[in-house]
Amino acid sequence: MPGLVSSVRRGLYRKLFDLNTRSGRRFEGMCALFALLSVIVIFIESGVGTQYHLTYDEWHIFIWLEVFITLVFTLEYFLRLCCWANPAKYVFSFWGIIDLATILPLYVMWLWPEISLSYVFAWRAMRVLRVLRILKLLRFMPSLRVFWNAIKSARHQLILFYSFIAILMIVFGALMYLIEGPKYGFTTLNASVYWAIVTVTTVGYGDITPHTPLGRMVASLLILIGYSVIAIPTGLITTHMSSAFQNRQNLRKCPQCQQGQHEHSAQFCNRCGSKLPG
Amino acid sequence: MPGLVSSVRRGLYRKLFDLNTRSGRRFEGMCALFALLSVIVIFIESGVGTQYHLTYDEWHIFIWLEVFITLVFTLEYFLRLCCWANPAKYVFSFWGIIDLATILPLYVMWLWPEISLSYVFAWRAMRVLRVLRILKLLRFMPSLRVFWNAIKSARHQLILFYSFIAILMIVFGALMYLIEGPKYGFTTLNASVYWAIVTVTTVGYGDITPHTPLGRMVASLLILIGYSVIAIPTGLITTHMSSAFQNRQNLRKCPQCQQGQHEHSAQFCNRCGSKLPG
Amino acid sequence: MPGLVSSVRRGLYRKLFDLNTRSGRRFEGMCALFALLSVIVIFIESGVGTQYHLTYDEWHIFIWLEVFITLVFTLEYFLRLCCWANPAKYVFSFWGIIDLATILPLYVMWLWPEISLSYVFAWRAMRVLRVLRILKLLRFMPSLRVFWNAIKSARHQLILFYSFIAILMIVFGALMYLIEGPKYGFTTLNASVYWAIVTVTTVGYGDITPHTPLGRMVASLLILIGYSVIAIPTGLITTHMSSAFQNRQNLRKCPQCQQGQHEHSAQFCNRCGSKLPG
Amino acid sequence: MPGLVSSVRRGLYRKLFDLNTRSGRRFEGMCALFALLSVIVIFIESGVGTQYHLTYDEWHIFIWLEVFITLVFTLEYFLRLCCWANPAKYVFSFWGIIDLATILPLYVMWLWPEISLSYVFAWRAMRVLRVLRILKLLRFMPSLRVFWNAIKSARHQLILFYSFIAILMIVFGALMYLIEGPKYGFTTLNASVYWAIVTVTTVGYGDITPHTPLGRMVASLLILIGYSVIAIPTGLITTHMSSAFQNRQNLRKCPQCQQGQHEHSAQFCNRCGSKLPG
Repeated sequence: MPGLVSSVRRGLYRKLFDLNTRSGRRFEGMCALFALLSVIVIFIESGVGTQYHLTYDEWHIFIWLEVFITLVFTLEYFLRLCCWANPAKYVFSFWGIIDLATILPLYVMWLWPEISLSYVFAWRAMRVLRVLRILKLLRFMPSLRVFWNAIKSARHQLILFYSFIAILMIVFGALMYLIEGPKYGFTTLNASVYWAIVTVTTVGYGDITPHTPLGRMVASLLILIGYSVIAIPTGLITTHMSSAFQNRQNLRKCPQCQQGQHEHSAQFCNRCGSKLPG
Repeated sequence: MPGLVSSVRRGLYRKLFDLNTRSGRRFEGMCALFALLSVIVIFIESGVGTQYHLTYDEWHIFIWLEVFITLVFTLEYFLRLCCWANPAKYVFSFWGIIDLATILPLYVMWLWPEISLSYVFAWRAMRVLRVLRILKLLRFMPSLRVFWNAIKSARHQLILFYSFIAILMIVFGALMYLIEGPKYGFTTLNASVYWAIVTVTTVGYGDITPHTPLGRMVASLLILIGYSVIAIPTGLITTHMSSAFQNRQNLRKCPQCQQGQHEHSAQFCNRCGSKLPG
Repeated sequence: MPGLVSSVRRGLYRKLFDLNTRSGRRFEGMCALFALLSVIVIFIESGVGTQYHLTYDEWHIFIWLEVFITLVFTLEYFLRLCCWANPAKYVFSFWGIIDLATILPLYVMWLWPEISLSYVFAWRAMRVLRVLRILKLLRFMPSLRVFWNAIKSARHQLILFYSFIAILMIVFGALMYLIEGPKYGFTTLNASVYWAIVTVTTVGYGDITPHTPLGRMVASLLILIGYSVIAIPTGLITTHMSSAFQNRQNLRKCPQCQQGQHEHSAQFCNRCGSKLPG
Repeated sequence: MPGLVSSVRRGLYRKLFDLNTRSGRRFEGMCALFALLSVIVIFIESGVGTQYHLTYDEWHIFIWLEVFITLVFTLEYFLRLCCWANPAKYVFSFWGIIDLATILPLYVMWLWPEISLSYVFAWRAMRVLRVLRILKLLRFMPSLRVFWNAIKSARHQLILFYSFIAILMIVFGALMYLIEGPKYGFTTLNASVYWAIVTVTTVGYGDITPHTPLGRMVASLLILIGYSVIAIPTGLITTHMSSAFQNRQNLRKCPQCQQGQHEHSAQFCNRCGSKLPG
């Protein structure tokens, strides 16, 4: 009997979750699409619910949609729980926590309705938890691993430059805190460093701005120095990324004749003519 | 008889719309210039009409100008309709729709004046339709096709990174919606994601800004992470574009001796000295 | 006699204005330094004069400084007028106009004091004219010619992309004018296009911002598309510039042995050891 | 006796401050960590002290923490003073001044309490001085020297472009001062140039913005021109930096077999397999 159960489990795993099989990729794709749709529903609900006063019936559409979505994802969660060789490992993995957290809100609202109805913060927290379903789409983007490896290979230089930028911002933030003072929004050291970050990255909200002539001179100096320095991590990541993608594409092998050197935009093997993997 | 009509039609097409003939290029250029002038007139009309109270006579200048411009473009539309081998195909093409839409406003105002005079929105819509004439200039920029091909060849990576950025923004937007709440402008999930997009791209309008210490820390984190990530699609497009332009320039052949390898900035063939195409 | 005058004139020209002689470079450098100092004085005058109520004596310092500066530049102007082989050519050249315009304000104020004292705009115009002395510094930066050539060699592509960006901005500006309307600052087509330029270049003042959900979606789309497109001209200029500088540095010849291939950062000829030009 | 003192001094120096010994690196690391912690304490103090009304006891925690931190850094200062071969050189070096300045605030507050308690500015200055401890972290980042050398090797071109940008900003700032005038925030020439810097670098606070149609046109022109020009120094620094890092990594030698050519991401010598330095 345990043999049968385990063979069924293994069969299901291969059918549903193994990305090397066609049905596995299709199932994963459907889950991602469904997650995307459910997040779009939440955004419509958030937009419509704030702007118009919904009638009881109109709210019901969203509630029934949410019940349906939660049931589907609960089913997915139990399927994964059953199929994994080591369920505990899945439960405490990143994906296991995301999968569980995004189905909880409805059950919490059902069991303890007073929580979400009486506290606005809890209501918002529920909605945000549900939005995290968008993270399920990441499962469907294995090529992001290349991106991640590129960042890892540049980590020493990234840490170095981000530390340098952090020191620069703390020093200039402190200077502006001294020069401008709380009168123009530089109320604390934290606010001043926040201003420095917003300024150097050229975001420039304008909620805190220098007003004294000396403050404006220091700010101009910070902008011109920082503008050149902040681009270094960006340049590092872009360079590493490009070369990582180049390498991956150069190394893709023809599935037919195993020939490995192909042009960047080649779609067919230049020796045997069979289709190359993306 | 049909033979004569069709030969006249083919002759007109070659004279007026075939970009390979000299007169065709000249006619196309004149149409583009005229479209540009008509758009400049609309801008002056929009600027002047809002700032000053125009007398009846002053308005008349703009109305007569518009009548004249519409007649010219109507003539162009019918000429194209006549000359095309397959008029239906032209009518439902991108250019056909643009050409038709930009001459309609005046006729609509003439036939149903009550629409545009009673609804401000309709009046604005008319003006915007007329501004779309600027798109006619695109016909005169065939080299943009290189740009378009570059984007197409990088589409897999662009989709990957834009999806990643979208997920990042939805997660951070939701987080800020939870932390800051509607008190500081983060009224809905949509507004929070809009804030995240405006922040990560360093536009930073400042209409919605974080005010709590925790919110400012999360915003700073988003800015520093996002700033490095958002540059990747930009870098990808720029790289593809440069190499596409390089390729096109390297491949331009001398019309005299067919020699194909020329320096980037060469204006004359380095073998026979004849003028190279731009 | 004319022979003597012309030889004195030629001698003066070589001594003072010929950048190939040592004294000419030194004189040009002194003029540039003096122009820089005079502009700093104007900035101090503008800053101090607005912030504090100056006494009669304090104003006098600035007036006497200005009289002194104007006399020196008048002398320079007449020297140039005398030394040039063809004075008329100098007078109507870019530099001639700048040199004349920046000494005029004081004479205008002296001859027609009522103009500058009664009209605030004339007073501001005088000050701005005087600030244009900063342009004299450009004479001292011959390497900017490399920069200028780089832009000229990329002009076809630059015009293409700036036109494309202009069309993009007019279309999106018109769209936002339709969606948002005058209620949220999109009063005219001109203002909407100004908003589009400020948005796409990520300046983001925040004086005009979208408020409707649809407007925010279109704005987000514009930001993400435009952000990638606007970088293309920037990338083109940077690339052309780098290669232009590289070429210039690779081509610098050793003044001793005429050997031409030197490393980017080499300061001495690697064959005979003599100092290389910057 | 002096021999013993000097040998103890030399021993201490090697143990504590020589970055070539293991214990020296460890001590330096501990000092950097402690500086980091002390700065975090100041930030918490600044944030908490402004937001909540602290009781006497709660303030005491921060005061005792500051006393402890100051004592540790005082000890470090005297250790360095003792160990250096030439104490005077240390005292007047950059690091000596930083080390002294960051321990002074507490002693000043202890000796002349009336200064810091009666003047808000003095209180802020004390806090800012203490924050400068963050600069101690720079001692622990020797690889920043590569960064510094890269900037030094590009200094001619950087000065050239920053001067050009400065001239551009002064001219456009003056132009906007003339066009817009003090009515819309362009009160002085200084404020106008500050606006030009904030605009061209795409920070765009929005505290000063053009309102007249002509002013908006000039601003748009400045944005589009400046946007392409401002990236040149950024590009120069990034390029020099990348090549500097590349060179350093290519030149790292295997400590075992002295073989010097290694791949960018190699962690082990490709000839003898021993670990390569970072």
